[in-house]
Amino acid sequence: MEQQELFRAVVDVCVLILLAEVAASINARLRLPRILGTLFTGILFGPYLIGGIMIGNRPFIQYSELIYIFSEIGAILLLFEAGLHMTFGELVKSGKATFTVATIGVIIPYFLGLGASTLLGYDVFVGMIIGGALTATSIAISLTTLQEMGQMDSPEAKLIIGAAVVDDVLALSIASLILSMFADPAPRGILTIGRLLATTIVTWFVLSALSARLVPRLMAFVWRLEEIDIMYHNLVPIFSIMLCFGYASISGWLGLSPLVGAFIAGMATSGSKYSDQVREFTEKLGVMFVPLFFVVTGSNVNPYSMLTGNFLLITVLALVAVVSKLVGCGFPAMFFLKNRVKGSRVGYGMISRGEIGLVIAGIGITYGIISDEVYTALVVTTFITTLLPPFLLRRSYLNDSSSVIPDSIRKSRGTSRPG
Amino acid sequence: MEQQELFRAVVDVCVLILLAEVAASINARLRLPRILGTLFTGILFGPYLIGGIMIGNRPFIQYSELIYIFSEIGAILLLFEAGLHMTFGELVKSGKATFTVATIGVIIPYFLGLGASTLLGYDVFVGMIIGGALTATSIAISLTTLQEMGQMDSPEAKLIIGAAVVDDVLALSIASLILSMFADPAPRGILTIGRLLATTIVTWFVLSALSARLVPRLMAFVWRLEEIDIMYHNLVPIFSIMLCFGYASISGWLGLSPLVGAFIAGMATSGSKYSDQVREFTEKLGVMFVPLFFVVTGSNVNPYSMLTGNFLLITVLALVAVVSKLVGCGFPAMFFLKNRVKGSRVGYGMISRGEIGLVIAGIGITYGIISDEVYTALVVTTFITTLLPPFLLRRSYLNDSSSVIPDSIRKSRGTSRPG
Repeated sequence: MEQQELFRAVVDVCVLILLAEVAASINARLRLPRILGTLFTGILFGPYLIGGIMIGNRPFIQYSELIYIFSEIGAILLLFEAGLHMTFGELVKSGKATFTVATIGVIIPYFLGLGASTLLGYDVFVGMIIGGALTATSIAISLTTLQEMGQMDSPEAKLIIGAAVVDDVLALSIASLILSMFADPAPRGILTIGRLLATTIVTWFVLSALSARLVPRLMAFVWRLEEIDIMYHNLVPIFSIMLCFGYASISGWLGLSPLVGAFIAGMATSGSKYSDQVREFTEKLGVMFVPLFFVVTGSNVNPYSMLTGNFLLITVLALVAVVSKLVGCGFPAMFFLKNRVKGSRVGYGMISRGEIGLVIAGIGITYGIISDEVYTALVVTTFITTLLPPFLLRRSYLNDSSSVIPDSIRKSRGTSRPG
Repeated sequence: MEQQELFRAVVDVCVLILLAEVAASINARLRLPRILGTLFTGILFGPYLIGGIMIGNRPFIQYSELIYIFSEIGAILLLFEAGLHMTFGELVKSGKATFTVATIGVIIPYFLGLGASTLLGYDVFVGMIIGGALTATSIAISLTTLQEMGQMDSPEAKLIIGAAVVDDVLALSIASLILSMFADPAPRGILTIGRLLATTIVTWFVLSALSARLVPRLMAFVWRLEEIDIMYHNLVPIFSIMLCFGYASISGWLGLSPLVGAFIAGMATSGSKYSDQVREFTEKLGVMFVPLFFVVTGSNVNPYSMLTGNFLLITVLALVAVVSKLVGCGFPAMFFLKNRVKGSRVGYGMISRGEIGLVIAGIGITYGIISDEVYTALVVTTFITTLLPPFLLRRSYLNDSSSVIPDSIRKSRGTSRPG
């Protein structure tokens, strides 16, 4: 990247963050979820609309490599932060609930997606890609909404986070299963399939368990290094960021998602006594990265393809996507949390799909399994699912007088609309 | 950049920052300047030594595009921070001193470099490149040393910063002058040369003056936007980072260095009442970027070429580089600051050369004006000049009982060496 270009790209990064913050503020004034302002900034200032307007011989916002680099770093930091809110011990304690919610929440969308697309006349492999793409929850949106409402440490938030991470793990094993079946369509026994799923889950569990023991010790060692020197510096936080991205790389190599790796690193760090220091540093650093992840998500939506897509398919898929998670996660959660309202929140929080679903859809189109039409429908469905959780969660918390919500949110509710 | 590669590159970034911090701490224990630890990290873990050792099919540290991107962003943030310590009013008030120190500090190295290389038998154009490459001070090293000693707001620090920025401006006009003379070697009147220099200086001055009026108003406007919303966010600091990189781009386009642009943006911001907020944010953000600038500087030094270089040329150039700034900046500073010790500190602080000198040497080798031998000698000389200011400044402050130095530095002086 040439120097002039690089500096101009940093300006674009800052412009997008500023626009996103302003849009979030406007949303807050209109009593809408802040995070949707960030997403809409991506659409409105994306390459298809205002961002693509040429000023001289350069678009208003050049979606350069730097923006994508920052957005990928942002996604990793976000999942790391999510991990920081949960220890491995807590995950194990809530193990039965987490695994049940995740598993039922993967099985129902998969078979509902497969069934619906078969009914619409699609091939069984197309149906498997559609089903697979609908399995993985993307918690980025729900996380930010829960943060906004000050609910990150509530039992339903922990269940959402844990189950979403587990369903990522499951979704990715389904994806590799589909690929191997497409390469060699000989029928597989339920045992083979089970073994593949089990391997991934066990890998994930063992990595989490080992890390939960190892990482706090490493941190304590680094802390001792830091104490030797009298001048202020940031060894422990930088070490933790290193771990976070190290786990992101390694988990890719182990067949898990980099996001899952970042979560494991965060969870392991949260068991150390330096987790507050790390959390503070990550939040500050995140300011320059995390909003870009949502802006880029929005910028990938082509509003024209939404208008010219296969409406029947989009409607069916969107319905399947929403209902399958509401039922597949909401009901088990109600059972485990012994509370209808909290259970339904888990259902709401699990609705949104994201990068992993898109990766599966991407595999589908790359291998020529699905058509452009199906791909577009999956992208649009993914987008629609990201819009719902902020509204549903927000309403649920505001209508519940027993939940403790930050003053600023209550206040903004009381404020009259501008104009 | 592929995702796996990107995350691995972020790990490399963190590893280098950690190593640099540890090296800085070891240096502090040995009563050496911290910043030299960072530089040596770059050499030791650079591509020529440990960093280049292959582990599997990948070097221990891959000097990927991300590392260079982060290091360039770091250099800009560092100069922006330097600007935050000075208002335009202060610069104008100290105008006579700043311009005199800068001008004499450019004239003497230029002609001493030209003269010495002519005596050694080099062509006059080679001499001009050598002279030009020795004119521009790189304050990065001195800045960090002054920060370490808690002296950023002392009169000598302000003089160093101001003069170093002005001499960058002068050096760049000299570079474009050499290039135009090389393209058309017809003799030029002193008037033409003067006009070219004057144009650059005036551009710089006008941009600084306008920005000092405009930027604080813009910040106040953004602050009002920030006040509308109740939730915490970072509009003002992000806006200022945007300005910083915007100025870096624009000043490249105006024929100034991007570093000079970042300084102007910082200086303009420091006149606003939000400068503390911006400074705090920039420092936090800088943790992930600034050390990389010094590590990359070190990593560019090929230790083997130091051993096989033209020793006579290197010795002469290093002497010229050091003596010319000590004399050319130190004496005028003694006169203006009416204090021998403080004046000599300005001389020390101006010794180090850096990116702009290397850019001029790079132009020389690209246009075939200078040979590899001369280029290597200039690179090694630049490196040698970066080693001196931290020692000289540190000693000067520690020997001066009247200067107020952070406890930690005094303490580390009293601490016995480990082992």
